[in-house]
Amino acid sequence: MSELALRAAKLDGQDDLAGVRERFVLDEVVYLDGNSLGALPAHVPGRVEDVVRRQWGELRIRSWDESGWWTAPERIGDRIAPLVGAAAGQIVVADSTSVNVFKALVGAVRLAGEGRDEILVDATTFPTDGYIAESAARLTGCALRPLAPGEVPAALGDRTAAVLLNHVDYRTGRLHDLPSLTAAVHAAGAVSVWDLCHSAGALPVGLDEHGVDLAVGCTYKYLNGGPGSPAYLYVRRELQDRFDSPLPGWNSHAEPFGMRSAYEPAAGAPRGRVGTPDILSMLALEAALEVWEGVPVAAVRAKSLALTDFFLECVEAYVPAGRVACVTPVAHEERGSQIALRCADAGDVMKRLIERGVVGDFRQPDVLRFGFTPLYVGFADVERAARVLGEVAGAAAGRS
Amino acid sequence: MSELALRAAKLDGQDDLAGVRERFVLDEVVYLDGNSLGALPAHVPGRVEDVVRRQWGELRIRSWDESGWWTAPERIGDRIAPLVGAAAGQIVVADSTSVNVFKALVGAVRLAGEGRDEILVDATTFPTDGYIAESAARLTGCALRPLAPGEVPAALGDRTAAVLLNHVDYRTGRLHDLPSLTAAVHAAGAVSVWDLCHSAGALPVGLDEHGVDLAVGCTYKYLNGGPGSPAYLYVRRELQDRFDSPLPGWNSHAEPFGMRSAYEPAAGAPRGRVGTPDILSMLALEAALEVWEGVPVAAVRAKSLALTDFFLECVEAYVPAGRVACVTPVAHEERGSQIALRCADAGDVMKRLIERGVVGDFRQPDVLRFGFTPLYVGFADVERAARVLGEVAGAAAGRS
Repeated sequence: MSELALRAAKLDGQDDLAGVRERFVLDEVVYLDGNSLGALPAHVPGRVEDVVRRQWGELRIRSWDESGWWTAPERIGDRIAPLVGAAAGQIVVADSTSVNVFKALVGAVRLAGEGRDEILVDATTFPTDGYIAESAARLTGCALRPLAPGEVPAALGDRTAAVLLNHVDYRTGRLHDLPSLTAAVHAAGAVSVWDLCHSAGALPVGLDEHGVDLAVGCTYKYLNGGPGSPAYLYVRRELQDRFDSPLPGWNSHAEPFGMRSAYEPAAGAPRGRVGTPDILSMLALEAALEVWEGVPVAAVRAKSLALTDFFLECVEAYVPAGRVACVTPVAHEERGSQIALRCADAGDVMKRLIERGVVGDFRQPDVLRFGFTPLYVGFADVERAARVLGEVAGAAAGRS
Repeated sequence: MSELALRAAKLDGQDDLAGVRERFVLDEVVYLDGNSLGALPAHVPGRVEDVVRRQWGELRIRSWDESGWWTAPERIGDRIAPLVGAAAGQIVVADSTSVNVFKALVGAVRLAGEGRDEILVDATTFPTDGYIAESAARLTGCALRPLAPGEVPAALGDRTAAVLLNHVDYRTGRLHDLPSLTAAVHAAGAVSVWDLCHSAGALPVGLDEHGVDLAVGCTYKYLNGGPGSPAYLYVRRELQDRFDSPLPGWNSHAEPFGMRSAYEPAAGAPRGRVGTPDILSMLALEAALEVWEGVPVAAVRAKSLALTDFFLECVEAYVPAGRVACVTPVAHEERGSQIALRCADAGDVMKRLIERGVVGDFRQPDVLRFGFTPLYVGFADVERAARVLGEVAGAAAGRS
């Protein structure tokens, strides 16, 4: 056993979260793509079966009340709340991330008020945020200004209505400074919108503590809700009464079954709802969130940093010099829970890694992306992934 | 056995669709709420289990390609297409009905072009359409004019951009004249948007034949997709290149994995996609659509009319005179697949009906609503429902 393998075994032995891995269905694969699709929690299939066979099949329409279907969006929102540092009553689960970005951005422009007609958006962001921001700007008569997150403070001004930022960059894994950027946005009198897709469930977010105005996130990455599980929308409590959704569907009405022709928005988090919730996906997510029972987010963050530190150390040891270059910041305060390595033949290398049982993903044009999900990835996984990467990259280099 | 019960048995014996009932999980309840939530097709639980345990649990991220997750929205759209009279390549399954109404209406206003700044909307419609239309009007700078569908032809003019109509009214069950209303909208140079929630799967729609421009519908009523299963959007082929979605999420990009910062819309139906599809709900729907194998929509319509005719006859025979009044049109060409009965104490009566194993629903303020889903409702069910209604309504009348 190599020195790094021994270290890995020791680190796994000291890992307080090691037992949480039992809550998931896993096999011999080293799964480092949980930042794209989280693994299946072991108790989810049974719960989904109950939803399908009993709640839908036997109770049918009665389940909207009796099985709690109707209130699922806000109930599950309250379950996500502690993971992102939010008190109850501010998060609703509904729709996709893109649709929630639209609600949040148009809502933010309306909250900002008259005279503010510019939206700033992270130019390095996951593209959908930029596309949706462009549509929100067009429909609200705003100008859209794409820039790097570091340029935001200097760009803020009297015209700034809303600022859409990613907490962790999907490609590089860079963690942006949410507290100071939010404070800068507020100092300029603008409204902050954060996309938490790549941070929620991997590190503390502190929405309430840092006074974030609106936030959105997906639930199928670090929250393990299943493929395409519904996203969520956070609207800070003090803003809820003024939140004016561009998608005022009947589920967001103060009295949805009154079937009234005049729209009157519901109070609180349900105001962010739109149409009928997709119950199968939603209740699979609800079940999946139970894996967080007794798991402090601070412990997840500590393990996440230890995993990525150890991976970088193993890559340094195993991968021939010059074959890969780390794109992810080395400083802990700037690192999410993934490591992105630039590699000229990244597409080919990732294919071989997957064949050898190490699953990460390839991002155009030349990035190997490895996500570290502390609930079920261990240090031995990390050592093996780096070792196989070294073999694959070395072999490919030898061939060329 | 009463004469009506004998008639019911005979009609069931002659029913070509009687065998289709075996494809569903049903019990001794007479389920006349399939126009709200369709019953569970028998093979769906096994398929959902495979999606959860194998596709998500074992293949994980690989399923986006290997299990066909990525292409599900347009593949399932093509499965719905023949049920609403559409050729392949024009329907995409995604999001909720409300979200699709928003895409369709904003898209319709943009298709109508400059100088047209009024949206007509069915004032008797399911309220969400009106709420969303109000938002679409506000964001596109249009005026919104709510009116009864019959008033549409006279209200059309040079300013009309888009007209949003329900094919079947959710409350009264009235079927509107889609061909002639669509023709009138076109004659005025405006764009038609039809909501098919209460007609698709119950009667022929003929989207292509009648030149409908855009249409939306849900899949959890007559299509039996399960609670909150995703809705669909139809964009007529000739309009697809000009369709300009207000929700241009990354799933609608010409090259979604190019992760390009400039938005370029996909060709064809995928242009109507937004964010990551909710795979569990979506693949349950895909499985559910298999119950249509070998079932012609014309046969469904014929049986639907026979069921509602027979129900009205039984109600006439069993329910004390004056206790209920039919709100649904008697003329076949104006009737969907439900019967709505006005009844002063409708809430109380429906509660007692449900206790006696006859499930319909109550719509404010005084409507008993019964949906007839020809795939699994038979004539004996109809006779029993009317008989129990007569007993319940008679008893309540006796008490008062």
